[in-house]
Amino acid sequence: MLVLVDAFGGDKAPLEVLKGCILSLSENPGIDVALVGNEEKINKCAKENGLDISSFKIFPAQSEITMNDEPGAVLKEKKDSSISEGLRLLSEDNADAFVSAGNSGAVILGSTMIVKRIKGISRPAFAPIMPTAAGPFMLIDGGANVEVRPEMLRQFGIMGSVYMESILGVKNPRVVLANVGTEDHKGGPLQHKAFELLKTSGINFLGNTEARDIPAGVADVVVADGFTGNIIAKMYEGAAKELFGKIKGVFYKNLRTKIAALLIKKELMELKQYFDYNRYGGAVVLGVRKPVLKTHGSANAVAVSAVIRAAAEFAQSGAIDIIEKKISELKGEEDK
Amino acid sequence: MLVLVDAFGGDKAPLEVLKGCILSLSENPGIDVALVGNEEKINKCAKENGLDISSFKIFPAQSEITMNDEPGAVLKEKKDSSISEGLRLLSEDNADAFVSAGNSGAVILGSTMIVKRIKGISRPAFAPIMPTAAGPFMLIDGGANVEVRPEMLRQFGIMGSVYMESILGVKNPRVVLANVGTEDHKGGPLQHKAFELLKTSGINFLGNTEARDIPAGVADVVVADGFTGNIIAKMYEGAAKELFGKIKGVFYKNLRTKIAALLIKKELMELKQYFDYNRYGGAVVLGVRKPVLKTHGSANAVAVSAVIRAAAEFAQSGAIDIIEKKISELKGEEDK
Repeated sequence: MLVLVDAFGGDKAPLEVLKGCILSLSENPGIDVALVGNEEKINKCAKENGLDISSFKIFPAQSEITMNDEPGAVLKEKKDSSISEGLRLLSEDNADAFVSAGNSGAVILGSTMIVKRIKGISRPAFAPIMPTAAGPFMLIDGGANVEVRPEMLRQFGIMGSVYMESILGVKNPRVVLANVGTEDHKGGPLQHKAFELLKTSGINFLGNTEARDIPAGVADVVVADGFTGNIIAKMYEGAAKELFGKIKGVFYKNLRTKIAALLIKKELMELKQYFDYNRYGGAVVLGVRKPVLKTHGSANAVAVSAVIRAAAEFAQSGAIDIIEKKISELKGEEDK
Repeated sequence: MLVLVDAFGGDKAPLEVLKGCILSLSENPGIDVALVGNEEKINKCAKENGLDISSFKIFPAQSEITMNDEPGAVLKEKKDSSISEGLRLLSEDNADAFVSAGNSGAVILGSTMIVKRIKGISRPAFAPIMPTAAGPFMLIDGGANVEVRPEMLRQFGIMGSVYMESILGVKNPRVVLANVGTEDHKGGPLQHKAFELLKTSGINFLGNTEARDIPAGVADVVVADGFTGNIIAKMYEGAAKELFGKIKGVFYKNLRTKIAALLIKKELMELKQYFDYNRYGGAVVLGVRKPVLKTHGSANAVAVSAVIRAAAEFAQSGAIDIIEKKISELKGEEDK
């Protein structure tokens, strides 16, 4: 089992990526790690920071895609980037999975064009695994496809269900459609049609959900078009950040509140971890032929090690074959 | 200045509504209050609870719209409801503003059909005033129009800007479009066109915003279609509820955490108030000829008094005339 890691993805690359790969050696026994990126820069960073990276094979890639690059760069002006090369190596079976903390748009576009879609899948989705106090859920699509057709939402529901069952071990995952109310007829034409399709997809579709109930853990898979999914993910992140920031401010207010902070520090840190985006290995590019995962741009070593583990679990699970089979069966049903 | 109050709106009606009206007498000097609803039930509730409501005129209305009624009931099977009667009385100039804690859909539909639209406005919007630690912002549309055209988003931006300036005293309100990124070209065709229109609307349009930045107080007016707006409002509410709930749980954990809770109780209550939906008087139905405000279904007396004050301020502001003038000027520009 070999996971290929983009050495130049994220704000803290390559240092935090290298640290994460080293951490993975002890945290994830049995998972081999390789790096892709500029060899000279990688070795220089390792040397300067006293890191032993001798056990990692390095695949060379000359350029780096930044957060400011257009996603299209992955195929054109920076087709020799660490993301492009990593995805090419993956598609040619030099690794079992690829992970990056870099430019999401480039990872999604590159996965679609270089690794290519699973047969029958209209559009790959970007699916972050998100936290609630009741456990994680998959949001699909979290932003890859701003405009979608109802059939795509159905495919998202199926892919999300397979992933949560195969990789996270959720039995019969509860799938819902993000909507403006819980009644069956809510939303616009896209939601109406998607609701009908999801009902007849052989998954545990519970119907519509209001966004209000998502943070309480109402479902294991939340299906949405990429525009709505992006709003859900970012509002969740923004609200949690704002609230934790304000609570921190409250504790620093005076001596009395500082004492309270000391008394409750441990529990608050635990609570913050519940809502930590990095715990579940980030986001999955679902719908392409090999496992591609993306972790947060600000990922630290712990998050990098977590995404390596998640990628290996995805590769071991056989989920991609299951998705292909389910989509082909659905196609068979439709053709009848 | 007379504010007409729906005595049968909300989960705690009529008791909390009556208490709120009495509270308003002391909190909001100079604002007269009248009630609309079943006179017998109102008097019975007042008597049972020892409330003096002798200073409120009661306009009779026989039926009540519940949260389970379809919005259409306001015009048909329950056209003698407190919402229908209240809106009719408002439209016939028996009051300066109408407030309800009842069925949002019925209030919006009733406002549009009974009070009627401001000349030139395509669709009225439901615009909640929402909290951030940096101050309130208006979300427009928060859910009235699931499907919109770009011109409607432009009108929402103009109406929101006028409201925040005229009633909340925000100078040159910062208006943004909710989108999946901050760059000008983000989103789908709706956002692209709306972006161009908002740029040339004579308002302080700052461009696109990511949902992540909304809870930090990035804008005074957040423009969105009703589907997206509903997701924003409900995710904010859901995330805040979940987090405060979990924090409460942490404090009840053991003796040590309970002591911390005692030490910091005051500050946490203050923080919770920052995020309290009821502080700013709820949501405004913007785009109809007279002021209609809706407060939360779970509104208590304090929230009822706050929405009465907000409604009176709206009525005094002349904002509806300003909106009509701006929309007509825009129309004039377009016709040139």
